[in-house]
Amino acid sequence: MSMIGPAAPVTIVAYKWVPDMAQGYVRDLRPRWACEEAGIPYAENLIDLMDKPAAHFDEQPWGQVPALRDGDVRVFESGAALLHLGEKSETLLPPSGQPRATALSWLLGAFNTVEPVLMELTNVNVFAKGQEWTELRRPTLEEFVRRRLKPVEVLVAKQDWLGDDFSIADIAMVTSLRELDNSALWGEHPAITAYVARGMARPAFKQAMADQLAAFARHPAPAVQTA
Amino acid sequence: MSMIGPAAPVTIVAYKWVPDMAQGYVRDLRPRWACEEAGIPYAENLIDLMDKPAAHFDEQPWGQVPALRDGDVRVFESGAALLHLGEKSETLLPPSGQPRATALSWLLGAFNTVEPVLMELTNVNVFAKGQEWTELRRPTLEEFVRRRLKPVEVLVAKQDWLGDDFSIADIAMVTSLRELDNSALWGEHPAITAYVARGMARPAFKQAMADQLAAFARHPAPAVQTA
Repeated sequence: MSMIGPAAPVTIVAYKWVPDMAQGYVRDLRPRWACEEAGIPYAENLIDLMDKPAAHFDEQPWGQVPALRDGDVRVFESGAALLHLGEKSETLLPPSGQPRATALSWLLGAFNTVEPVLMELTNVNVFAKGQEWTELRRPTLEEFVRRRLKPVEVLVAKQDWLGDDFSIADIAMVTSLRELDNSALWGEHPAITAYVARGMARPAFKQAMADQLAAFARHPAPAVQTA
Repeated sequence: MSMIGPAAPVTIVAYKWVPDMAQGYVRDLRPRWACEEAGIPYAENLIDLMDKPAAHFDEQPWGQVPALRDGDVRVFESGAALLHLGEKSETLLPPSGQPRATALSWLLGAFNTVEPVLMELTNVNVFAKGQEWTELRRPTLEEFVRRRLKPVEVLVAKQDWLGDDFSIADIAMVTSLRELDNSALWGEHPAITAYVARGMARPAFKQAMADQLAAFARHPAPAVQTA
C-alpha cells in the first residue's frame, strides 16, 4: 500500500517528469523506500526538472532532488533524508550499540566509498560516452571499482543485509549498486547481483519505484523545442 | 591540550607513518578534530600502512583508516565516526530540529556531493598525473567541480559555518575542501579559501593536526627496498 497521503507532515520533493533513462533511478526513490519500509506517510511535492522554482534552491543548494520537509524542518541530500527518517523508526536505523554503528558505517560506506566510484563509471559508460578520455580512463577506473566492491561482495555472499537486519544502509547500498547494471562489472559480482535483487524484491522498494514512475506517467514529457 | 589518553574508552585507528604528501591529510584527522572540539578523550591505535594487521580488515572492510572503537562498539568510515561522536556531544551535532537537519544535510553534502568530485580532481592533478586521459578529462571535470562549489562559496561568504554554529558538517566540509589546495580552482573561490582558513585556525583543528603529525614523527619511514 502506498504511503503517499496529501496531508502527511513529511513531504518529499521530486520531479514531475525525467527522461526515460533516468526514470526509476532518481534519488527520491531512497526516502520513498524508507517511508514505505517504516510506514511513514508522506506527501509528494513535484517540481519541473526543466523549470525549477527559484525557491527550490533555498531548500536544496544544488537544485537537485530529493529534498525532504518534516513540518517546518528542511532536509537535503538523500543520505541526510535517510538519517532523518531513520531517527523516526527503529525499523530503519537501530537506536544504539553495534547495530546502529554498523548501519551508520555502511551508510557512509555507500555514500562516500562505493557510490562515488560507481557514478564516475556511469559517467564514463553513459554520460560522457564517446569522449576521447573515457576509453583511456576505463581500465584504471574499473580496477578501482573492483577494489571498492570486493568487501561488499564478500559480505553479502555471507548474509542477506549489511547488518543483522535490513536498514537505511541497505537502501543506500542497493540504490548505489544498481548503477552497475549498465556495466560489464555486473557479471563479475554474483553476490552483489543477488543482494540487489533481494533489495528490489522487497514490497517497500516495489511500491516506492511504482510511485516514482506513476508521477512521471501522470505528467507529459515537455514539448520538444523545434528551432 | 591534546585529548589523547591511553585509557580512554574511544580509540582512533590511524597510521604510524605515511609518505610526506599524505601527512596532515589522512582522514583520522576528522575524528581527532571532533574529539578535540568536544573534549572527548581518545586513545590512538597506530597500524603499519605497509603491513596492515589482518584483523584491521575485520573493522574496516577496505583496510583504510580511520576506524573508531568506543568500548565494544566498532565504527568505520570517517563520516560515520563523526556521526557517532556527534551523538555524544551537542557541540558537534545539535540534538534536534532544523539545526540537526542542517548539520546532517551538509555533512552528507560534503561526503556525497562535494568530496567525490574533489577527489577525482586530485586524482587527475596528483595520483594519475601524466596519464594521457587526465589532460583530456580536466576541462569537463573542473567545470563540474565549479558547479558543486558554487552554493558553498555563496553560503560561506554570508556566514562563518554551514549552520548557525560550527558542527561536524564543517569538519567534513573543511577537510574535503582542503583537497582543492593543489588545484587552480582554489583562487577562484575566495570565500571557500577564507572558510577553510577559519576552520584550520580553530585550536581543535591545530591540535588534531599536531597529533597526527606527531605520530608520524615518532615512527621512522620504512627502509627503502634496494633490489
